[in-house]
Amino acid sequence: MDVQAILFDVFGTVVDWRGSLIAELSEWGAARGIGADWTGLVDTWRGAYAPSMDRVRRGELPWTKLDDLHMATLREIGPRFGLVGLPDADMEWVNRGWHRLRPWPDSVPGLRALHPRYILGPLSNGNVSLLVDMARGAGLPWDVILGAEVSGHYKPDPETYLGACRMLSLQPEQVMLCAAHNYDLVAAQGLGLRTAFVPRPTEYGPLQVRDFGPEGEWDVVASDMEDFAARMLA
Amino acid sequence: MDVQAILFDVFGTVVDWRGSLIAELSEWGAARGIGADWTGLVDTWRGAYAPSMDRVRRGELPWTKLDDLHMATLREIGPRFGLVGLPDADMEWVNRGWHRLRPWPDSVPGLRALHPRYILGPLSNGNVSLLVDMARGAGLPWDVILGAEVSGHYKPDPETYLGACRMLSLQPEQVMLCAAHNYDLVAAQGLGLRTAFVPRPTEYGPLQVRDFGPEGEWDVVASDMEDFAARMLA
Repeated sequence: MDVQAILFDVFGTVVDWRGSLIAELSEWGAARGIGADWTGLVDTWRGAYAPSMDRVRRGELPWTKLDDLHMATLREIGPRFGLVGLPDADMEWVNRGWHRLRPWPDSVPGLRALHPRYILGPLSNGNVSLLVDMARGAGLPWDVILGAEVSGHYKPDPETYLGACRMLSLQPEQVMLCAAHNYDLVAAQGLGLRTAFVPRPTEYGPLQVRDFGPEGEWDVVASDMEDFAARMLA
Repeated sequence: MDVQAILFDVFGTVVDWRGSLIAELSEWGAARGIGADWTGLVDTWRGAYAPSMDRVRRGELPWTKLDDLHMATLREIGPRFGLVGLPDADMEWVNRGWHRLRPWPDSVPGLRALHPRYILGPLSNGNVSLLVDMARGAGLPWDVILGAEVSGHYKPDPETYLGACRMLSLQPEQVMLCAAHNYDLVAAQGLGLRTAFVPRPTEYGPLQVRDFGPEGEWDVVASDMEDFAARMLA
């Protein structure tokens, strides 16, 4: 393999969105006396993620950045979980919880080990400012921010992956996608990118129904991000 | 001022393109016995920079990344300066000299001082892979790579500046451009961005004819990047 750059799916692969959001919002709600069902809210919020992007992918919505899709969903589902009458500034703070997600414990050590050898970046459906804020908060050593907003298409549209390769001035086979989701790797492999799978079997908590293991012929299968780094540096 | 992000012009403002290229190519040429006029080549190469981007800006060329504009110019002017019959790999190496430019001595200390407080990135006409390679080589602490290739327009087209603000999810007045070139600050200020001028009076060597000082009402005027950082952190 002649891999020059490794790009990462972010939500679930690098950061623990579910654990981060439930913990932070529960603490914030308790401090303010807001008795919402935060677990139900977070799971339902994430449940609306793919359908909301699909509306953009099908052309039913013009290009809309993920922050704005997240906010529209939050306003729609909030009342069902006890989130009513919050000032706009508080709704904005809740929505920006996605900017403050925490990495899995192995993510930062793995990325730091890879950084001297490989160009690193996210290939995420998150918008650029979300990914910048997250990287600054979590210490993710990205060289470049790539993904949906830069390419103008949500994964798994081919343009997202190929746009990233074009920005890097690399051929697809010189770029590897590392993800905890088989569907993402299917799309990347189909376009000629290299692929790596890292399982995140607790990403969805008790709701997890898939991606417990690799379901394709991926170039690398690792147990976590530090193991992935060790394999790529061997 | 409510500045959240500081973006930087790169060629001339952050890196010494002329000194870097002349020194590196002279050394490389001497080691290989290639007796080209490197100073003449570099100055003429840079002289073709703005006209080549203008062809894209006027629509005479489709979108072309700076690496490709640089290579077309190099092939055209090379023979005039003794660069003939080089293998493609060597021409590619010479062209990628722009990826290996060295920062002015005050650039990295200034950027590192600013980084904890401000989101930092280039707002350059250089393509993404050029800027990524340069940052990795020079240790520039960018949070995000912005500029012509991400916006699909060369400076001073308004889309370059406004596209960067949009990617950052910030209003123009929350974004500052730091540049050694007054024309760049004129464009940014006209769109509502904040502006900072840092003089680089030796950028063009003996050919320098402008930008010895500020020529507008810029928000900040500093003597170099460390002075700029001190002012922004005061």
